[in-house]
Amino acid sequence: MRMRQLFSQTLREVPAEAEIPSHMLSLKAGLVRSLAAGIYSYLPLGRRALNKIENIIREEIDAIGGQEITMPVVHPADIWKETQRWYKVGDEMARFKDRADRDMVLAMTHEEVIADLVRQEIQSYRQLPCLLYQIQTKFRDEPRSRGGLIRVREFTMKDSYSLDADWEGLDQQYQAHYQAYFNIFNRCHLPVIAVESDVGMMGGQMAHEYMYLNPIGEDTLVLCDACGYSANRQVALVKKAKPVPEALLPIEKVATPGTATIDDLAAFLDVSTQQTAKAVFLMATLVHEGREEEKFVFAVVRGDMDLNETKLANAIGATALRPAHEEDIRAVGAEPGYASPIGLELTNALVVVDDLIPDCPNLVAGANEAGYHFRNTNYGRDYETEPHLVKDIVAAQDGDLCPECSQPVRTSRGVEVGNIFKLGTEYTEALGGHYLDSDGNQKPVIMGCYGIGSGRLLACALEEHHDENGICFPISIAPYQVHLVAMLHRAPEVAETAERIYREAWDAGIEMLLDDREATPGVKFNDADLLGLPIRLTIGPRSLKQGAVEFKLRTEAEARSIPLDDVIPTLQTEIERLLKESKDKAVPMPFPET
Amino acid sequence: MRMRQLFSQTLREVPAEAEIPSHMLSLKAGLVRSLAAGIYSYLPLGRRALNKIENIIREEIDAIGGQEITMPVVHPADIWKETQRWYKVGDEMARFKDRADRDMVLAMTHEEVIADLVRQEIQSYRQLPCLLYQIQTKFRDEPRSRGGLIRVREFTMKDSYSLDADWEGLDQQYQAHYQAYFNIFNRCHLPVIAVESDVGMMGGQMAHEYMYLNPIGEDTLVLCDACGYSANRQVALVKKAKPVPEALLPIEKVATPGTATIDDLAAFLDVSTQQTAKAVFLMATLVHEGREEEKFVFAVVRGDMDLNETKLANAIGATALRPAHEEDIRAVGAEPGYASPIGLELTNALVVVDDLIPDCPNLVAGANEAGYHFRNTNYGRDYETEPHLVKDIVAAQDGDLCPECSQPVRTSRGVEVGNIFKLGTEYTEALGGHYLDSDGNQKPVIMGCYGIGSGRLLACALEEHHDENGICFPISIAPYQVHLVAMLHRAPEVAETAERIYREAWDAGIEMLLDDREATPGVKFNDADLLGLPIRLTIGPRSLKQGAVEFKLRTEAEARSIPLDDVIPTLQTEIERLLKESKDKAVPMPFPET
Repeated sequence: MRMRQLFSQTLREVPAEAEIPSHMLSLKAGLVRSLAAGIYSYLPLGRRALNKIENIIREEIDAIGGQEITMPVVHPADIWKETQRWYKVGDEMARFKDRADRDMVLAMTHEEVIADLVRQEIQSYRQLPCLLYQIQTKFRDEPRSRGGLIRVREFTMKDSYSLDADWEGLDQQYQAHYQAYFNIFNRCHLPVIAVESDVGMMGGQMAHEYMYLNPIGEDTLVLCDACGYSANRQVALVKKAKPVPEALLPIEKVATPGTATIDDLAAFLDVSTQQTAKAVFLMATLVHEGREEEKFVFAVVRGDMDLNETKLANAIGATALRPAHEEDIRAVGAEPGYASPIGLELTNALVVVDDLIPDCPNLVAGANEAGYHFRNTNYGRDYETEPHLVKDIVAAQDGDLCPECSQPVRTSRGVEVGNIFKLGTEYTEALGGHYLDSDGNQKPVIMGCYGIGSGRLLACALEEHHDENGICFPISIAPYQVHLVAMLHRAPEVAETAERIYREAWDAGIEMLLDDREATPGVKFNDADLLGLPIRLTIGPRSLKQGAVEFKLRTEAEARSIPLDDVIPTLQTEIERLLKESKDKAVPMPFPET
Repeated sequence: MRMRQLFSQTLREVPAEAEIPSHMLSLKAGLVRSLAAGIYSYLPLGRRALNKIENIIREEIDAIGGQEITMPVVHPADIWKETQRWYKVGDEMARFKDRADRDMVLAMTHEEVIADLVRQEIQSYRQLPCLLYQIQTKFRDEPRSRGGLIRVREFTMKDSYSLDADWEGLDQQYQAHYQAYFNIFNRCHLPVIAVESDVGMMGGQMAHEYMYLNPIGEDTLVLCDACGYSANRQVALVKKAKPVPEALLPIEKVATPGTATIDDLAAFLDVSTQQTAKAVFLMATLVHEGREEEKFVFAVVRGDMDLNETKLANAIGATALRPAHEEDIRAVGAEPGYASPIGLELTNALVVVDDLIPDCPNLVAGANEAGYHFRNTNYGRDYETEPHLVKDIVAAQDGDLCPECSQPVRTSRGVEVGNIFKLGTEYTEALGGHYLDSDGNQKPVIMGCYGIGSGRLLACALEEHHDENGICFPISIAPYQVHLVAMLHRAPEVAETAERIYREAWDAGIEMLLDDREATPGVKFNDADLLGLPIRLTIGPRSLKQGAVEFKLRTEAEARSIPLDDVIPTLQTEIERLLKESKDKAVPMPFPET
């Protein structure tokens, strides 16, 4: 590609809302342009980088037996109703009526279509195991798209779906993906860790997320440096140290004026926050026989701990949670800031108590009266949940003890760049995706699903590989391998030699971008640094007189001179070396024992 | 790929609604499966065939300077409002509200997004010419999807967009596509002709359609075998022989009971249908300042000719036409079956008269009274149109005279497999896609657009290349090149040799499908014929004993025996020969002078 013809232009300024490096760089380098909030066009350089990434994904999924297919972007709502997700998923799902007034859905994911294909295509255990995948557009109407390509509404995803007759088969395909995903990220030079994660709207038995650790991330991870335990905070376990048992003291109402926060309360009563109970109020969306209903939830955790909404949602089977309004809270007789379940008739609410609470004697808790608390409240004696909902619902924090090895954990922010799920039979049961086993019994096919968004992967690679001057593309995902800067001003013979090198390079299979623009050396070098191709060649009147060109790696400060005749062999050697480094990064990763 | 693992299955029976060969074959061979009306999933074999087609397209568009990009499937309605197509396009456009209640659109085509990119990216004439393309999903909510992959609602399209500073540049890029499209279809072994066509909802100055001639087609083409003139009937010109002039006779009302059709009328009055005028009534949708309105249209053509609705719509700038209801007709004072514009006050209607009518003296026309006609009506004397709408609005028919060489034309049915449009500046003017010319003047960028649907191309290739037993894939678009049938029953040594050949083939870059299923020879041969890969190898106990395998081309009846040691070299030679044939099919096509 010659830059005179390249459609995309580099920008000096980017919109103020671009705050993180990958967002700024993808705009400045002309990789993408925004069409609407969270909706982007990929311009030629961005498209080429994405092609490289998608081909790496294709190679790794083909290597574990993937068969590429393409499923539609527009789905009839019927199949989403069959699995209930039409009802369970909220506004993230874009819906419309077609001209025949039928409900239609834009694909957020494709489990329903896979299960529908399975019921058409799979009859016998002989056809299993099987692995299908596609690289296809998805639309999720995120409430808050942000960070350029990090969180968008329309995106391209590689999603694969494993089909098995037995659970051992699922385990094998899951583990094959576990390794293949590391291979993909490693070959794209993106360091990731795999963490246990919530199954979310996918459902199923087990899930891992691939996390790129970076402060821009929206996820919080709980990591143990001692034993390697890692989990998304949404599901991270934590070893809860039980307090020393003590005799239950009589409940006692005390005036605690102006103590609406736990810290104020503890200070006022001169107790530690560990000796208090905190009430959190939420409205939960529950789906019952295809109909949504909202229910008031009264959650109780110890004062020094935070509620984990994912754990709470999973504990009660909620599809969504939102903070309760003050009037909701008062409606059950509780006093905001001074609330506890004690003495309330909570017939139309769910009370969920963290499983550490029953082991904590004599806690301070609200008296449901402004300005008053109880001392010495005790679960079991003073209140109980009905139905019995005593569950782990607290969020892990820095310094909590690792559930595996009891060493302190740390938390870190991360971006989810991939996820894998053991789905089980939920979708195939809902849609009738059965097979006959060797004894002639009908059984539901066992599914797994596995996703990587190629655009987010690109964005994270930009976060990881840049400096103050621009992108530093790893060669495996660079739009082109070599940037040839031709210093054309006042030197027509340079143009000729540059053009010859350019043609010889492409003939030799080297992907070269030629800067043949009429621009100053400063502009050209700045753009070369901004676009960040791995190798830069520079040819100008002076070097040409010496029969040489300047060779420089983007990641190194020093340039060196190479004879004109050696340009192509040198490039071939360097590119081969760099590409081999990328391939070598696909090393075996042990699958965690659980 | 081993067929034991292949997800897609061949079918013995297909749904009754599959009537045309490509629909039946694509289902029977397991290339695709329907998810909803006009919405298909591509299974592994279909996906591979589509990949081949899309790569041929990519190569040919890259060769004329195309830069690949990807634009979104979901668009904000704003840009469609800026070009008025939000208002002009009907139910084919799928629309929805996003979670922020903004109007959104599913991409039917991408002129708006291109023009939006142009206004962001193009500043100077130095950046032009430029050619962008993508291979991306489109959704058009067709009222009647039909014929399997021939007319669908969701489809993948290669759409390219040329950007130029001047009209000569547009001419050049248009002509480059004209040739590239022939190259693409030829390399896919699909015979097509290019015909002049209507610009339709795209607008612009010139358009050609690539037509695959086949009775299943929805389009009617007008072809002159003498000089090569070809056009879609929607726009086909026709040489209208003017009748011999004669003196105008006085108008005369005659009773013509029971003559509601032209043929009845001509027979009753003993005149030729050429001596009659026919009235046709339609309701036209016109867009005026962003608002739609319906207007009654009174069209007059000679009795022996048919109205061409496309020409009529273009003549009056209508975005849609529908037949008028009887009450609409009576509302303007006309009598259905006995109508003419004579004597009517047509203030709120448009009267459009075919341009041959003023040259035809003394025509019979309706008297606007049931059972009566006028003899000797004459345009200009007895009625006129106001505003002046005397235009060519008749449809060409078999035997009409060619507008170029005056020889009789013939009509033929065809499927549109590609189209190219000289759009001009309509979209860039609407969206502000300007550039500065060398004198510093701001001018709108001149656009062309060019489309090929890859799925419809595949379907047409199946129509063209099949026999009673199944598909006969041209090698350039075959999912695999070779089908290896292993006769495994009672011969374990066959499996071993088949596996060895299979591995050696892939190592040599030969794309082989291995039928390793436990099935009878009959089932395997039938499936090989159905799937239609270009080369079939058969290995069984008998041939193995002779150290040989059977080699057969799908398109030839005779098989021959080749020694085991020669299998790979023979395949390489044959594949090279077949692929070269495909490439050689890309021959220069003269661009028509107009």
